[in-house]
Amino acid sequence: DMAEEDVDQDFTELQEVEDKIRALTDELEEKMVELDKEYSKKKRPLFDERIKICSKIPNFWLNTLLNHSELQEYINTSDYDCLRHLKILDVQDVDQDGMQGTRYSFTFTKNPFFDNQMIFKEFKYNKESGELVVDTSPINWKDGCNLTLKGAQSSKEEKGKGKREATEDNEVQSFFCWFDSREETESPIGDWIREDIWKDPFKYFCGDDDDEDGEEDDEGEGEEGEDGEDGEEGGEEEEEDAGEGDE
Amino acid sequence: DMAEEDVDQDFTELQEVEDKIRALTDELEEKMVELDKEYSKKKRPLFDERIKICSKIPNFWLNTLLNHSELQEYINTSDYDCLRHLKILDVQDVDQDGMQGTRYSFTFTKNPFFDNQMIFKEFKYNKESGELVVDTSPINWKDGCNLTLKGAQSSKEEKGKGKREATEDNEVQSFFCWFDSREETESPIGDWIREDIWKDPFKYFCGDDDDEDGEEDDEGEGEEGEDGEDGEEGGEEEEEDAGEGDE
Repeated sequence: DMAEEDVDQDFTELQEVEDKIRALTDELEEKMVELDKEYSKKKRPLFDERIKICSKIPNFWLNTLLNHSELQEYINTSDYDCLRHLKILDVQDVDQDGMQGTRYSFTFTKNPFFDNQMIFKEFKYNKESGELVVDTSPINWKDGCNLTLKGAQSSKEEKGKGKREATEDNEVQSFFCWFDSREETESPIGDWIREDIWKDPFKYFCGDDDDEDGEEDDEGEGEEGEDGEDGEEGGEEEEEDAGEGDE
Repeated sequence: DMAEEDVDQDFTELQEVEDKIRALTDELEEKMVELDKEYSKKKRPLFDERIKICSKIPNFWLNTLLNHSELQEYINTSDYDCLRHLKILDVQDVDQDGMQGTRYSFTFTKNPFFDNQMIFKEFKYNKESGELVVDTSPINWKDGCNLTLKGAQSSKEEKGKGKREATEDNEVQSFFCWFDSREETESPIGDWIREDIWKDPFKYFCGDDDDEDGEEDDEGEGEEGEDGEDGEEGGEEEEEDAGEGDE
């Protein structure tokens, strides 16, 4: 066309070489994805083993989630009692019907909040179009227990307990709102779970979040203060009333 | 130790599983690196072919570098005349003597600025320690032509030509300062060249920098205004006096 004639250049040759380079780049990308899948499969039995072990540690996931400095801001104190019943957190690759993505599933023991045993959130991309589809499970809240409704009565027995005073808790949405919303973009909560927590949950359980501001760095395990002021990070005082009341 | 006894938990089992998962992650990472190297080798002949083609297009690398919206801020107008002589830009993986990294080499035609035919900058990491070693080639400037010295007389015949008026050029360091400095961290210039330009130089040559602010998006090819106000992005007006005076 005009422009090319003006500068008196034919770029066909260059474009052909770039196409060849691009084809190799795409091929590499595909192989990387395959390799990644292969290793996901290899890791699966280990993830399952880890899930089993973690489910036996009282409040493992509650403490782990709360020790992620960014994620914890999406959990309000009313969620704590409910998340004490979270026994299994699982992150699975999804790859079916031309869709690819991640499924986050949360399995709870019998609890006074909702009837579901398992709730999930799933982000899937259409491999052709790239379109994102978000799927979530509706939560069957028990009467008066819906934590996503502002002012919902969260937990009777915990009322008045002086935990996590520092937070302006009224302004923090419930973690369970995540299961309500079908975002257009992948949410940071999913990313934090997959990229941070899932890679080393024990690190977070122990409170070693590298990205933390450092304030809580020396908050050790085993400080089982009965009821004290030390629970800001969802610390170990929850150990006492943990892990029972279920199945 | 104390803490673990307190919470009455033995995390050995969990740690062992996490170690196994980590080992697989490391293995995957290694394979990814291998795959990447394999494809770099496959691409090499194509890169060489591309280099040959580009070297025949007048001012190819000058225009390509200038059309990178971030990189262009590291090139001052006095550099232009020198970069017209840049015939080959090459990016090569370096992997020897336990060091791994990238070598950027710039081959020039005979020019009035320096005696080197080739100048390079190299970033290498020690595979064991992770330590970064930066290596650069000294430029043998001809008398009075050192573009990295402020106020150096860049080019006689271009003086007074009204190109690229918009820039407060005195405040922009010469691009060639990059070859002086041995940064502690890898410089953005290297990243831009490797991650952006090297992946699709033709795109940049044509002025299709996705990251651009959009102002110059409709700046087409072939607008060969003699000397006009349209040259802000190192556009095509340089075509006229391009590609001679060398070899």
